[in-house]
This record gives sequence, structure tokens and C-alpha cells, in this order.
Amino acid sequence: MKLRLDSGRPDLQIGEATRRGMAEFATGVALAATFQGDHIQAVTVNSFACQSLRPPIVSISLREDLRILKTIVESQVFSVSIMPIESHVLADELGRPRLGQVRGFEAGSKWGRRSGLPHLKSALAWFACELDQLVQIGDHVLVLATPTEVRTSRDRLWRAGPSEGSNADSPLVFHRRSYTTVEPWQLGSEPTSR
Amino acid sequence: MKLRLDSGRPDLQIGEATRRGMAEFATGVALAATFQGDHIQAVTVNSFACQSLRPPIVSISLREDLRILKTIVESQVFSVSIMPIESHVLADELGRPRLGQVRGFEAGSKWGRRSGLPHLKSALAWFACELDQLVQIGDHVLVLATPTEVRTSRDRLWRAGPSEGSNADSPLVFHRRSYTTVEPWQLGSEPTSR
Repeated sequence: MKLRLDSGRPDLQIGEATRRGMAEFATGVALAATFQGDHIQAVTVNSFACQSLRPPIVSISLREDLRILKTIVESQVFSVSIMPIESHVLADELGRPRLGQVRGFEAGSKWGRRSGLPHLKSALAWFACELDQLVQIGDHVLVLATPTEVRTSRDRLWRAGPSEGSNADSPLVFHRRSYTTVEPWQLGSEPTSR
Repeated sequence: MKLRLDSGRPDLQIGEATRRGMAEFATGVALAATFQGDHIQAVTVNSFACQSLRPPIVSISLREDLRILKTIVESQVFSVSIMPIESHVLADELGRPRLGQVRGFEAGSKWGRRSGLPHLKSALAWFACELDQLVQIGDHVLVLATPTEVRTSRDRLWRAGPSEGSNADSPLVFHRRSYTTVEPWQLGSEPTSR
């Protein structure tokens, strides 16, 4: 399915206004990653979302020229790691794929392998995902996937939880084109609908 | 397009794990709204996203049984208001549509009308949207739309900006099933890719 991949010039003014408006909407930050041989391909995304709970379907949005998209299509699987504040340098590095290429690198101290997929050890939550469908939307591709395994840093089998007062538990947040995190206090404890 | 609207029981265990995992991913909070006659239908969403910049395409994800979805399909237009922290009570109220019904109410001091659409006066950013396409994904419908007008609270024609040190400029954020906001400090000033 292709949507509005118009020939001709898009309206740059409304495009710039959209970009500025969207900057007001805060998002978490995650790494989408997959193995290509022994190398990890990974890219920073703030488009991670849950599209359905019954059945569970999650999504990421990727630029159509990203190499990792090809690898995901080939392998049919990828992982998503929700990043803590301490990983902001990595988020910045992997948010700048040069010429559409995502840096491949060996799994070092930051990365492990779980269920055949890369996992960021510091992740607040980690999802193993199986590709369902690609939807082309303008200059991006919406990658729809079924989570097959989900772990959070609060699962005892996952890792020791952060010590009291540590900020290892704080999420990395992207807002007004900058990294920050959430305030430690909460206004309520009730879920919204999506 | 229908995706995995499986007959039979979905895997409740992975569904619950997905819900817990997604709670680690912070999101902004917005109100999708439309007029039905003189009444406003509005629902709280944390699924607002930009799917493409060239051309600009944004999206919200709505439960398929929400009445506002029918109204949007009929009118082909809706607005999205990104909420500031001060609007958390409204976010909570409009996040609980009873039996799939969204409360309609007269535009009072909180709401205005702009380009024929409701706008939340306290919004950090406001989008007028034209429906492009609906994509059924499991139990939700992804509503793809083209922004036709975008304003932010920083636009001089929109409203007087918040005074220095005021928190009227702070976004409402949803994380771990609670409302909060972002820290006022920033880790960097660089954009990530989506």
C-alpha cells in the first residue's frame, strides 16, 4: 500500500510546521536491532508503538532507505530495546545513520544475545519481534510485528533491579529535539486509553 | 486491510507482557477531537505520531468501537491538541470513554473553534487534520491523516507565550501508566532519526 507518494513538490511550509508541532509531543527512545551475521545493525527510533493488544501488535517507523529495513525483511525478526537515560550517547550515535547505513558492531559490554536477537543490556524493556507486515507511508515504512518475548528490567530473571535512588530506572525521553527524562513524581496512577 | 484479527483466543500471556513492556516507553498525551453539530467529541490518545514528513502524514490509533471514529469518517476531519501538564484532569476524564462512547460537551472556556475544528486552548501544539486512510490493526484502527494547519503555543498569533518560569509550557507525559512531565533540563540538543 502506498500513500500519497506524490509526484511534485510537497508543501514544505506545512512539512516544517508539522515537524515543529510534533516536537512538542514527547516520546520514549528505543533501539531497533537485528543480527547480520555476527554484527549488530541497530538504529535509534522514537516511533515505537503498540498498535493492538488483542492480538499484540507493535510497530516501528523506519526511513525507507535504511539498510536495517532490508535486513529485517530478510530475517523476518528484530528486537526493540527501550533505552534508559544512561544510554543517551548511544541513542545519539545510532540516530545518525550515515547515508542510510546503520553502523554494524560486535556485541560488546553493552549488548547481549537473547533468543537469537540483540538486546541492549541496560534496556528498561526488551521485545523480540516477528515481522507481520510493512506499510509504506510517505517517506517511511511502518513495520508491524508480533512480539514473541517481552522482558522488563523489573523481571527478576532479566537482571538485578536498579538500587533504590538510582536513576538506571529512568527512561530516555525525546522532547523538543532534545534528550531528557521524566520527572520522578506522578500526577496520577490511572491508565489512559490509546 | 486486516491484520491478524485471529479467530480463537489470543495469547493472553504475551499480551500482558506487551502491555507491561510498553508501559516503560514514555509518550506525550494528546486530545483527538471533532465537532458533531455543536458538540465536541474528544478522546485522549497517547498514540499520536508522525508517520512521514515528505509528504507530512500523522496518525492516531483508536479503538475500533469508539464513536469518535465514526464521526471522523463522516466528517473526514479532526484536530489533535498536544496537552500541557495543567490539563491532566481533562486527559484522565477523556481517557475513559464509557462503553465506547466519548463524552460530547459544549466548547467552554477550555475549548475554542479554529478552522472549523475544536482546539484545546491550553495546547502546546494543535493540528488540523484531513483523513487519508484507515488501517485496521488488530483491535485498533490506525487513522492516517494529512495536517492542513499546525500551530504551536510559541507562534505569536496563537496565544501569548507562557511567562518565564511558568510550567504552562511543560508537556503532559504518560509513563508507567501514570501522568508526569519531562525534566526541565536537557541531555543534548540533537535530533534522532525516526
